[in-house]
Amino acid sequence: MPKVPITVAIGDGIGPEIMSQTLRVLEAAGAALAPEFIEVGEAVYRAGHSSGIGPEAWESLRRTRVLLKAPITTPLGGGYKSLNVTLRKTLGLYANVRPCRSLFPAVATRHPTLDVVIIRENEEDLYAGIEHQQTPDVVQCLKLVSRSGCEKIVRFAFEYARRHGRRRITCMTKDNIMKLTDGLFHRVFMEIGRQYPDIEQDHQIIDIGAARLADTPERYDMVVTMNLYGDIISDIVAQLTGSVGLAGSANIGDHGALFEAIHGSAPDIAGQNVANPSGLLQAAVLMLGHLGQHEVAARIHNAWLCALEDGLHPADIYRADTSRAKVSTTEFADAVIARL
Amino acid sequence: MPKVPITVAIGDGIGPEIMSQTLRVLEAAGAALAPEFIEVGEAVYRAGHSSGIGPEAWESLRRTRVLLKAPITTPLGGGYKSLNVTLRKTLGLYANVRPCRSLFPAVATRHPTLDVVIIRENEEDLYAGIEHQQTPDVVQCLKLVSRSGCEKIVRFAFEYARRHGRRRITCMTKDNIMKLTDGLFHRVFMEIGRQYPDIEQDHQIIDIGAARLADTPERYDMVVTMNLYGDIISDIVAQLTGSVGLAGSANIGDHGALFEAIHGSAPDIAGQNVANPSGLLQAAVLMLGHLGQHEVAARIHNAWLCALEDGLHPADIYRADTSRAKVSTTEFADAVIARL
Ligand SMILES: CC(C)[C@H](C(=O)O)[C@@H](O)C(=O)O
Ligand SMILES: CC(C)[C@H](C(=O)O)[C@@H](O)C(=O)O
Repeated sequence: MPKVPITVAIGDGIGPEIMSQTLRVLEAAGAALAPEFIEVGEAVYRAGHSSGIGPEAWESLRRTRVLLKAPITTPLGGGYKSLNVTLRKTLGLYANVRPCRSLFPAVATRHPTLDVVIIRENEEDLYAGIEHQQTPDVVQCLKLVSRSGCEKIVRFAFEYARRHGRRRITCMTKDNIMKLTDGLFHRVFMEIGRQYPDIEQDHQIIDIGAARLADTPERYDMVVTMNLYGDIISDIVAQLTGSVGLAGSANIGDHGALFEAIHGSAPDIAGQNVANPSGLLQAAVLMLGHLGQHEVAARIHNAWLCALEDGLHPADIYRADTSRAKVSTTEFADAVIARL
Repeated sequence: MPKVPITVAIGDGIGPEIMSQTLRVLEAAGAALAPEFIEVGEAVYRAGHSSGIGPEAWESLRRTRVLLKAPITTPLGGGYKSLNVTLRKTLGLYANVRPCRSLFPAVATRHPTLDVVIIRENEEDLYAGIEHQQTPDVVQCLKLVSRSGCEKIVRFAFEYARRHGRRRITCMTKDNIMKLTDGLFHRVFMEIGRQYPDIEQDHQIIDIGAARLADTPERYDMVVTMNLYGDIISDIVAQLTGSVGLAGSANIGDHGALFEAIHGSAPDIAGQNVANPSGLLQAAVLMLGHLGQHEVAARIHNAWLCALEDGLHPADIYRADTSRAKVSTTEFADAVIARL
C-alpha cells in the first residue's frame, strides 16, 4: 500500500512523549503513513508568529490535508491566538467529532454502557476570538453564529448518524436566553431534522441537558451542539468513561482533517513518562479510518483494548484497589504493540 | 415577631402547585411573613408587557425588596425578554448562590459526601441579552464582562467562604480562549484572592473543571464562576445530589434579594400534583436566613430532612427498587408539616 503523507505536530507538555509512542504503535501496526513533522506552538510563538504556526507548517498542511496533532499550550497573555482555533478555522474544520464509549470492565466506570458521540460545531460561537476593551471597565467578546454554519454541522450530524447506525440525536442550546443565536441553531436542527425521519430527535436546554448527561450519560446516543457547550460536555462525557485521557477526536472539514486527543498538554506531568497516550492513539485510529485504512485501525483498536483488559493501566485510570498494574507511557505502548 | 412583607410570584407550569405548598409549610412553621402576591409571567407577557412584569409588581418589589419566586416560562419567540434576567438585572442581584448538598442516605446518590456551594455571577456575560442580526446569514450575541462586576462577585465569594467556614474556592473560566473577558474574571480572582490568604484558591479551565466536578464533586468546596458556566454547572451538581428538584438558590444584591428553585417550570408535569416542592422550599429556607429568621429556617429544614429520611419521596427522587413511598406534592408538604 502506498504511504499516505500526513502532517504531525508533536506538541508541548506531554505532547512529545505521547506522540512518539503513538507513532511507534502506528509503525508497528503497519499503517501506511509518511509523516512530515512540523514545528508549531511555544517555540514558534516565541519566534514571532502570533498564531504559533510558521510558513513551512502551512505548506505541509496544504500538501497533506491531514494533521495528527498532540496537545499544544497557547501561552496566556501577550496577544497570542489559540493555535487550535487558528488551525480549525483556517482549514475549515467545521465538525468536531468526539466519540465517548465506556470500556467496562477493562476500565472502571460508573457508566458501563455509556456510548455517546458528541458532534460539536467547530468554527463559530465565542471561539471566533473577537474581543474588545469597550470602556476602561468593560470588555466584550462576540458570539457569532451563521445559518450556513448551523446547517453544515447539523447536516453533518444527521449524515453521521445514518452512516454509523445511530438512532437518536439530542440538540442542546440555551435559546431561552439567546433567542437569535442559539435559537437559530435550534431552528436549523428542527428544519433539517425533518429530512431525517429515520433518526429520533429531541432538544434540551444546555443546563438541564448537561446535568442529565452528567448523571445518566447511558441514556444518550448522539448530541449535536454549539462550539463552547460541546467543549464542556465532551470533557464531561469522556471523563465519565474513566478519564478525559481516553478520548480522541476528529476535526473534519470538506478539504482536510485534524486528529487530536481531547485533553490538554498537562505541563504538570510533562517529561515524566506517566501520561496516558490513549487519547492520541484513539485520534490516530480515527485518522486511519478517515484515510480508509480500516484494517490497521481495527488492529490497533483491538490491541489497545486488550492491553487495557489485561490490566495495564496508565496513572490516570489506575486505581490502587484493583489487581491492575500501573504502567508508564512507554510500557503502555509496548503492551499495545505486543498485542497487535 | 412583626411580619416581614415579602413579594411572592406563583409562576407558571408547576409553579402554582409548589408555591402553594411552600407557603403552607412557611405558615405552619410560624414564619413571620406577610406575602404580597404579584402577577408576572405568561399572562402579563400576553397583556403587552414585553418583560412579563407589570407596574404593580415593580411597586411591590420596591417596597419589600424580597421576592420568593416560582419558576416562570419565558415564551419562545415574539420578542419576549427573560423575566428571570430582567428581575436579576433590574434589582441588581449580582450574586447567585447555589448550595448543593447530598442528603445521603435519605436520598440516593452516587456522591454521598457532596457539599458544594456554587457562586454564580448573575448580571453580566451572555445574559445581557444583546443580540443582533448582522447579515442575512450571521447573528451575534454580546458577552459583556466588567472589572467592577468581577470584583463584586469575587469579593462576595470570599466573604461568603469566611462567613460559612468554607475552606477552598475554585474559579472556573475559559481564558485560554477568551483572554480579555474570561481572563479578566480570572485575574480579578487572583488579585482579590491575595486579600484572603486563609482561603485556599485554585483555577480550572471550565471544560476540565466541569468534567472533574461531574465525576468527583465531593472534591470541591466552593466554585465561583461566570454567569453561563454557573448556570450549567449548578444544574449538574444539583442533579448529582439526586435531582435538580432539590436545590434552592439565593439571588443577592446590595438592595434586594430573590429566592427561587434552580429548576424550570416543567410544563409537561404541571397540574398533576407530582412535582417536588423541595427546591422552592429550600429557597424559602435561604430567604428566612436572609431575613434573620434562623430558628424557623432550621425548623423547616429539619422537618424537610426528616420527611425525606422517613422515605417520603416525590416522583423525581423516588426509586422503585427501594422501600420508599412515592408521594404527591401535597402529601410531601403534609409530611413536612407533620414533622415541624
Ligand atoms: C485547548 C482548547 C483551545 C481546546 C478547545 O477549547 O477547543 C480544547 O479544550 C479542546 O476541547 O479541544
Ligand atoms: C430560566 C433560565 C433563564 C435560568 C437561567 O439560565 O439563569 C435558569 O436556568 C436558572 O438557572 O436560574
